[in-house]
Amino acid sequence: MACNSDAQNGAAKHVCPSTLHVTRGALPASQKTYVGDLKVPMREIALTNGESLTVYDTSGPYTDETIELDIMRGLPKTRLKWVMERGDVEEVEGRMVQPMDNGYKDEAQMARRKVSHEKFPASPEKPLRAKDGHNVTQMHYARKGIVTPEMEYIAVRENQARIDAHESAQYGESFGANLPKLITGEFVRKEIAEGRAIIPANINHTELEPMIIGRNFLVKINANIGNSAVTSSIGEEVDKMVWSIRWGADTVMDLSTGKDIHDTREWIIRNSPVPIGTVPIYQALEKVNGIAEDLTWEIFRDTLIEQAEQGVDYFTIHAGVRLPYIQYTADRVTGIVSRGGSIMAKWCMHHHRESFLYTHFEEICEIMKAYDVSFSLGDGLRPGSIADANDKAQFAELETLGELTKIAWKHDVQVMIEGPGHVPMHLIKENMDKQLEHCHEAPFYTLGPLTTDIAPGYDHITSGIGAAMIGWYGCAMLCYVTPKEHLGLPNRDDVKEGVITYKIAAHAADLAKGHPGAQRRDDALSHARFDFRWVDQFNLSLDPDTAREYHDETLPAEGHKVASFCSMCGPKFCSMKITQEVRDFVAANPDGVKDKDETPQAAE
Amino acid sequence: MACNSDAQNGAAKHVCPSTLHVTRGALPASQKTYVGDLKVPMREIALTNGESLTVYDTSGPYTDETIELDIMRGLPKTRLKWVMERGDVEEVEGRMVQPMDNGYKDEAQMARRKVSHEKFPASPEKPLRAKDGHNVTQMHYARKGIVTPEMEYIAVRENQARIDAHESAQYGESFGANLPKLITGEFVRKEIAEGRAIIPANINHTELEPMIIGRNFLVKINANIGNSAVTSSIGEEVDKMVWSIRWGADTVMDLSTGKDIHDTREWIIRNSPVPIGTVPIYQALEKVNGIAEDLTWEIFRDTLIEQAEQGVDYFTIHAGVRLPYIQYTADRVTGIVSRGGSIMAKWCMHHHRESFLYTHFEEICEIMKAYDVSFSLGDGLRPGSIADANDKAQFAELETLGELTKIAWKHDVQVMIEGPGHVPMHLIKENMDKQLEHCHEAPFYTLGPLTTDIAPGYDHITSGIGAAMIGWYGCAMLCYVTPKEHLGLPNRDDVKEGVITYKIAAHAADLAKGHPGAQRRDDALSHARFDFRWVDQFNLSLDPDTAREYHDETLPAEGHKVASFCSMCGPKFCSMKITQEVRDFVAANPDGVKDKDETPQAAE
Repeated sequence: MACNSDAQNGAAKHVCPSTLHVTRGALPASQKTYVGDLKVPMREIALTNGESLTVYDTSGPYTDETIELDIMRGLPKTRLKWVMERGDVEEVEGRMVQPMDNGYKDEAQMARRKVSHEKFPASPEKPLRAKDGHNVTQMHYARKGIVTPEMEYIAVRENQARIDAHESAQYGESFGANLPKLITGEFVRKEIAEGRAIIPANINHTELEPMIIGRNFLVKINANIGNSAVTSSIGEEVDKMVWSIRWGADTVMDLSTGKDIHDTREWIIRNSPVPIGTVPIYQALEKVNGIAEDLTWEIFRDTLIEQAEQGVDYFTIHAGVRLPYIQYTADRVTGIVSRGGSIMAKWCMHHHRESFLYTHFEEICEIMKAYDVSFSLGDGLRPGSIADANDKAQFAELETLGELTKIAWKHDVQVMIEGPGHVPMHLIKENMDKQLEHCHEAPFYTLGPLTTDIAPGYDHITSGIGAAMIGWYGCAMLCYVTPKEHLGLPNRDDVKEGVITYKIAAHAADLAKGHPGAQRRDDALSHARFDFRWVDQFNLSLDPDTAREYHDETLPAEGHKVASFCSMCGPKFCSMKITQEVRDFVAANPDGVKDKDETPQAAE
Repeated sequence: MACNSDAQNGAAKHVCPSTLHVTRGALPASQKTYVGDLKVPMREIALTNGESLTVYDTSGPYTDETIELDIMRGLPKTRLKWVMERGDVEEVEGRMVQPMDNGYKDEAQMARRKVSHEKFPASPEKPLRAKDGHNVTQMHYARKGIVTPEMEYIAVRENQARIDAHESAQYGESFGANLPKLITGEFVRKEIAEGRAIIPANINHTELEPMIIGRNFLVKINANIGNSAVTSSIGEEVDKMVWSIRWGADTVMDLSTGKDIHDTREWIIRNSPVPIGTVPIYQALEKVNGIAEDLTWEIFRDTLIEQAEQGVDYFTIHAGVRLPYIQYTADRVTGIVSRGGSIMAKWCMHHHRESFLYTHFEEICEIMKAYDVSFSLGDGLRPGSIADANDKAQFAELETLGELTKIAWKHDVQVMIEGPGHVPMHLIKENMDKQLEHCHEAPFYTLGPLTTDIAPGYDHITSGIGAAMIGWYGCAMLCYVTPKEHLGLPNRDDVKEGVITYKIAAHAADLAKGHPGAQRRDDALSHARFDFRWVDQFNLSLDPDTAREYHDETLPAEGHKVASFCSMCGPKFCSMKITQEVRDFVAANPDGVKDKDETPQAAE
């Protein structure tokens, strides 16, 4: 692939990180279609009966084999035109990247790093920033009544090529969500203007295919990736990003810690068609050698600018971890489990001062609006166990996040709110209800929640249950949890398992809410199942490869994929076959069916 | 193991089915304890801090290494004494086992079958049956005011060695369930007498460790096993039974079809400490060579007696699939998907008559009460897709199941009611509410429900979501779904994945209901997590082996299992460590914490 060709060109310094082999190619029976003037990419699944189903597609150009891609150069910057045409941004010199940004003392130390932690090879372009006096957020445009191309694009994307509601629509329980039959650009604009949805889209991330997060749209999912001090290379993380969007991740958070944070992020953003989120305090902490009390507003501010210039689309900022709330966590079973929350608690305690994230919040907003970085207001005091769910610490912070939301909105900065964590089922709805109330309907973005603590190794499932429920109640984006949660760093298989589990949760939520398009895919798959169109059943599923593999384990013969029976009941008897007989029976008895001894015919 | 020693004894004919290697030995750090006079088996998990946690144990003698077991002879018949002491049963000649029972024309054909489909070697004992004029059901005793040893045993078992409610109890939303702090034998009796719970315990299954199914008790799970016409041997099925109870299956259904049904079941029952359920119509259908219309009441009746004499604890009987309801399924997306439902629909249509299961229901009750076989009234018209959920066919059948429940109760026969299937989240509660109403609070036993159709290969997860929810709402037992559902027959790994997923669902439900003992295990595990007692975290989890394996993938060194950091954050920084600092900080600031610039001290 691209790596090799670059090497042949003699660009020896820019060797591809050793494990950088990203998956390309379409999913089975699928092809990319581009809808409308804005060429919104979707995935069209061809069925064996001549029909097709068009579905939402997060996978970016990687699944379009007609596009030549070069991981060493990054994706095409298709959104750049829209950003430039607004005339409110300018190229700036920007902040100089320093060895410290990657965790090194100086250039010499950095030069000795492993080849698998190489700098992104394409020459960096000058960053864009809002011209003086301008605000370049989607919320700002929306409030001025402007429907941006990003908003139009999203309207088309959310409709998934539908031209009307599916026949099963208007059937769910939406808990107050407003789900129109079809989404228009104007509807998107209004939702953004009123803060009920966000479009995470940094002006420096023009490789982006815009998407929206809000409870009046399809429920979204996020996948976390990122190397840590203990393990993994840049290449693995880029591959995980591509892999996670292949299976349906709508956004990706780079939670890297340790060395090479800046370069890891550059590789990821330049190759990502989905919004990238980060937790800037992680990098700031590396810059002060992991000593939380050495953090300063200036170092944090500098990190925000560094990342905003790179193109990070949303920042998790734990500005709700206030000094007076820390004491509420003292009697918890698991204390403070959020890494960002712990860092800030430590800082506050050491200095005996209010958090600098809270006291400098307006200055943070000033930075965010110059690049259109969205807030993901972090829940640093989220519960880390069932015992700590919905406690005073958690809800005190939530109220502060609501207060900060108002401040951000004053600056037209987009906001979503992060949520827990570990919550038993009966306390989940209270989380959603309180979030809507205290945070003025800003979109909610939760981690799970995990509905029990007793299944490490299966926390994609303990949390998938909670995620489906909170998605139904109104949560806009679900942050995935992998089987390795609490135990280790997820590998490729874990990432896929986490993503598929969360696609299930998000889709189950869409169905229960009564999203006007959600049941199309269930119906298409169930029709295929009923008709014994095995191949269609595989291809319509969230994971066609696994569905086919499982089927073939029991019945490997190619003929069985068209045969009218399955392995559960065997060739002699099949329950589905009987339904055809039911239909014939009903047709033959138009006046209803009674026991023949009780009907006139029985008299003969 | 036993297989080998038998072979050495020259019992050449009784070779162990080729793949019969069942897992024995305790789970990590666990030992079997026997509580009280009735020696109720439980699992005690020893922790590294000197504490221990005693949990419910479904695994039977297999996890007690001090007990010598011989798969060729079956488990010890520990319950026989109780059954005999009541003085109301007698040995009978019983029905002669015939080649037809295993799907063979005659003895000669049967003699040619594969060695892996061998007869259970221990000489069959004469079956027990109620003496004339006696009724031997637990419901009958309960209504006479008798607290049987089975009921006392269950009371001890449900309490899991607790002597009081856990500190977190009285905290859930039980939707009307009545969850006393501690269960007494009298409470069990009353629940059984009033039909809100059942104890599936055939007098011919004396290897049984009694358990209870009812919404005022711990939520239970069932695992399905069984060979089919296409694949698998008896040995594999016995192994799956032992494997599934090791991980927590409370009951096991043998859904075998094809050849050797009788002998497969004999192997399973004789080696099973948990109740075994079957769908007798499957075997009856084999006896008429798979031709549904050739079924007769007489063949079905004979099959019931055959299975009752063997010791099957509950029968799924689709007596609610009535002739007039069949037409309601004609317009469904997936018609009739229950195999039993399809068989009966086919029979009804062919003969144009009411189902013989319905018309002979009282006679069925007469058989059930002579052996104490419980009804699991099958939902033959359950929805097979999201599109078909909660439709007229489904609820018409449910009302009939309620009517049949009353008839069974007239005979003091125990009843539970089967439920769906495929149901989107917002329609799940209606299923539970209608079931309670129409079926007079008889326990509900559901398959999932699956909350979306679009993820074949992951239907343990699509259904685990629905199972957790309906368990919370009041469902008493959750029938597992494995990743192979819709695709093929589950292997050992699939069985485990299904069981663990459903243990999660059942436990999440217990927590949400506010079961007075449920949160003990969550708290114990979370304390271990917080204290970095990695080994305890593994051992307290539902699947210690997988938890440890996942941890070791990232941090294999033995030292890391005691080190105070995990792979997510690395050795330099750990969020949990900070909580100790919070506690010290709070202790040092007893009057609350304010920014030092705002406090008197700041004046200095």
